[in-house]
Amino acid sequence: MEKRVSRELVYQGSILDVYKDHMVFDNGHEEDWDYIEHRKGAAAVVAVDRDEKLLLVRQWRNALDREALELPAGARDSVEEDTADCAARELEEETGFKAKKLHRLLSLKTTVAFCNELVDVYLATDLVPGKTNFDPAENIRLERWELADLIKLIFEGTIQDGKTVAGILAYARWKEENHD
Amino acid sequence: MEKRVSRELVYQGSILDVYKDHMVFDNGHEEDWDYIEHRKGAAAVVAVDRDEKLLLVRQWRNALDREALELPAGARDSVEEDTADCAARELEEETGFKAKKLHRLLSLKTTVAFCNELVDVYLATDLVPGKTNFDPAENIRLERWELADLIKLIFEGTIQDGKTVAGILAYARWKEENHD
Repeated sequence: MEKRVSRELVYQGSILDVYKDHMVFDNGHEEDWDYIEHRKGAAAVVAVDRDEKLLLVRQWRNALDREALELPAGARDSVEEDTADCAARELEEETGFKAKKLHRLLSLKTTVAFCNELVDVYLATDLVPGKTNFDPAENIRLERWELADLIKLIFEGTIQDGKTVAGILAYARWKEENHD
Repeated sequence: MEKRVSRELVYQGSILDVYKDHMVFDNGHEEDWDYIEHRKGAAAVVAVDRDEKLLLVRQWRNALDREALELPAGARDSVEEDTADCAARELEEETGFKAKKLHRLLSLKTTVAFCNELVDVYLATDLVPGKTNFDPAENIRLERWELADLIKLIFEGTIQDGKTVAGILAYARWKEENHD
């Protein structure tokens, strides 16, 4: 069993802090491990309209150097913000719709080997018009998709974003268990 | 639309490199963005035994400061390693089983807002005994679970690990579409 004997802040980024953890194992082995602290956590939304189509956003992703098709999502304003409030805000900002019903589907830790990032995924239904409000950094296109087509794109490997894959598959399961 | 005008290496970790990207937007706005390069990528395995139980591993996660129940998984030896080979190796090392059949279920990008990390998720069946081979850093307990119980744990929020949530839900869907 390993024990963390120190945690040293090595870099403060825009949205995350980078730490060097020094680990000592029962057998005497020692290693440095990376730890990325995502400061705020985030929320994502499976938004379903009255035609049972899902609202997805397509945007360029700097970390991938390509576009990705994703659930509407964004970071919390602060760690105090309820992820349901964050989900409602990001949905309206990115899609222009507000949800009368919001139900938590999943709580995700995106990549547990080195990062604490949390993404709570909500199901949003009974959508009504609101107002988009893009960040200066956002260039987002709204698309509407059938659930069955999204599931095909996931199994083909076209949709790869973790929160989006997990959220869509969770919604499909939830729908079967609750409504079909 | 934003454009990345520079990428500066700010920290070299054990398994990842941290960069500061300088972004300039069409409207003149400028920002620094974090970019985490996960050097090797990884593979994870939904391993199903002859009783249709799934093999999961429970381990302490330094980044969460708690235990997590996860799919067997691990990083590639190098970026040249095929993720199928990585999946086969990690399955045997962590569970003591080899798979006669390996099928790619998903390709995941774990957290696209700031990181390039790839995790390919494989379905492993026709399991035969092999040999465990734990890293010095690993203290892993093997557990066998019914699919229906795992899905309950996901929707209760007990299982949160992104690759595990996505992999289990993908297997459930795949099974419905292919075998039920």
